[in-house]
Amino acid sequence: MLLASSDVLPPAELATPVWLDAMSAAVGGVFGALTARRADLDVMGALFIAVATGIGGGLIRDTLLQRGTPAALTNPWLVPTALGAALVGLLFARPVVRLTLLLTLLDALFLGIYSIVGTEKAFRADLPLLSCVLLGVVTGVGGGLLRDILVGDRPMLLLPGAVYASAAAGGTTLFTVALALGGSTAVWFVPALALTVLMRLGSL
Amino acid sequence: MLLASSDVLPPAELATPVWLDAMSAAVGGVFGALTARRADLDVMGALFIAVATGIGGGLIRDTLLQRGTPAALTNPWLVPTALGAALVGLLFARPVVRLTLLLTLLDALFLGIYSIVGTEKAFRADLPLLSCVLLGVVTGVGGGLLRDILVGDRPMLLLPGAVYASAAAGGTTLFTVALALGGSTAVWFVPALALTVLMRLGSL
Amino acid sequence: MLLASSDVLPPAELATPVWLDAMSAAVGGVFGALTARRADLDVMGALFIAVATGIGGGLIRDTLLQRGTPAALTNPWLVPTALGAALVGLLFARPVVRLTLLLTLLDALFLGIYSIVGTEKAFRADLPLLSCVLLGVVTGVGGGLLRDILVGDRPMLLLPGAVYASAAAGGTTLFTVALALGGSTAVWFVPALALTVLMRLGSL
Repeated sequence: MLLASSDVLPPAELATPVWLDAMSAAVGGVFGALTARRADLDVMGALFIAVATGIGGGLIRDTLLQRGTPAALTNPWLVPTALGAALVGLLFARPVVRLTLLLTLLDALFLGIYSIVGTEKAFRADLPLLSCVLLGVVTGVGGGLLRDILVGDRPMLLLPGAVYASAAAGGTTLFTVALALGGSTAVWFVPALALTVLMRLGSL
Repeated sequence: MLLASSDVLPPAELATPVWLDAMSAAVGGVFGALTARRADLDVMGALFIAVATGIGGGLIRDTLLQRGTPAALTNPWLVPTALGAALVGLLFARPVVRLTLLLTLLDALFLGIYSIVGTEKAFRADLPLLSCVLLGVVTGVGGGLLRDILVGDRPMLLLPGAVYASAAAGGTTLFTVALALGGSTAVWFVPALALTVLMRLGSL
Repeated sequence: MLLASSDVLPPAELATPVWLDAMSAAVGGVFGALTARRADLDVMGALFIAVATGIGGGLIRDTLLQRGTPAALTNPWLVPTALGAALVGLLFARPVVRLTLLLTLLDALFLGIYSIVGTEKAFRADLPLLSCVLLGVVTGVGGGLLRDILVGDRPMLLLPGAVYASAAAGGTTLFTVALALGGSTAVWFVPALALTVLMRLGSL
């Protein structure tokens, strides 16, 4: 079977709608911009970091799966959205910081969504169960990981008590086990998402 | 269409001639060796860093595009050239450092050449316009980025005022817009290159 | 020729048996867990680092070669083994540290085995000779490299006197030259392995 080009893949059961992908890139972009500002980067450095944060998780996921050029690059909305969000984050840093609670909620939500989507892509590619969990976690945390490595910080997800990778692992494990036992994505998406979001928010 | 193996790609309009690829690997190799020397690495560590610097940009570009094994590995000249240049940089560090001005000029030149070549590859792969700019910038700065992450420095391109990613973004944006409006590579290569080189040198 | 999916590759002459792959993932997992413990990571961070250490070399090798999803993800044993070994390393850190000598021996052994396997895969993919050496070295050192970058340490292989990349380069160079001159894997595997192990252990 020919798996090299993304257009020969069967349509994904859990293909995230574009607006959801774009919203995730936006959240990542804002967080990236705030991190870059704290690290005293100039505008271009901040935009670079913000885009890496916004699309990093999907970029790493698709590069590892090797099913063609990553969606983060082929989708025409993700890079512009991450860029736009980063500009908003840089221009309105003060009011945006006041929205930290909202951003943290969105971040937990997208951590859940993206790790489950990553797991589902791996499951559909017939990877072993633990690889599905691993790829989901990497998808969920990849953007923040790339951001922290580029800026030279120790990755946030490794800070004790962050419950970041753990939260992603919790939701994706539940989801993987459910799918392996014959459960459907439609039924198990929300419980798995809720588990990740609750684990992440419970640690704050 | 089968896109997995590089030999089925249509010949690139902007395929860089081998001597240009090799020269870029050499400039990267010398810079990598000098960085490694400042960081007190031993010879083998320095060679490793130098090769990563010399071929890193193309390696990242081709890994992301997923059109087969990266040219940096399949081309028989690039790794040897980066290695040879690194040895020269290590053995003759003192006179080489005196050539800093020449090296900086060459570095700006190859930043421009490689970011535009990366952009052109992305454009030919029908990526969205901003993805073309992004992939070009990543190609141009990838070698130095890899070098700095491996050595444990904050990436040079993120230092305030470096005008490194910005210079690459300037040239590739001009080039992408020109191509999108129907311009030809032959006409727009030089103006885009000039913009990047002038932006980079103007910041020094 | 279609090279996109790993199942269309001719069977590898030097395909490592699964128990060997798994043992390497285990050694990496234990080392990763000990590193994570020294760096004060919590359990989940330690497991993440341990898995990255255990499968990182093969992951980087297969991602660069672009012959389909990396074996580290498609093989059902590697991630679980790295995880299990990491748990053992975390739970029994004190007695495990006493086994440092044994672990160091195993680490040198697997550095040799994996760098040679990486080189052989590159040779079979018709890469130029120095690329074969380079890919072998990257395979051998990739796990430790990823571990150190994620934890925020300068990569161990760059520490002066580590003779880590050098040892891998020694063995893979001998192996590559032998194969290029018409030698067989069966004859040259053991001498190349011995060279790497002796170079690495001789530096301790």
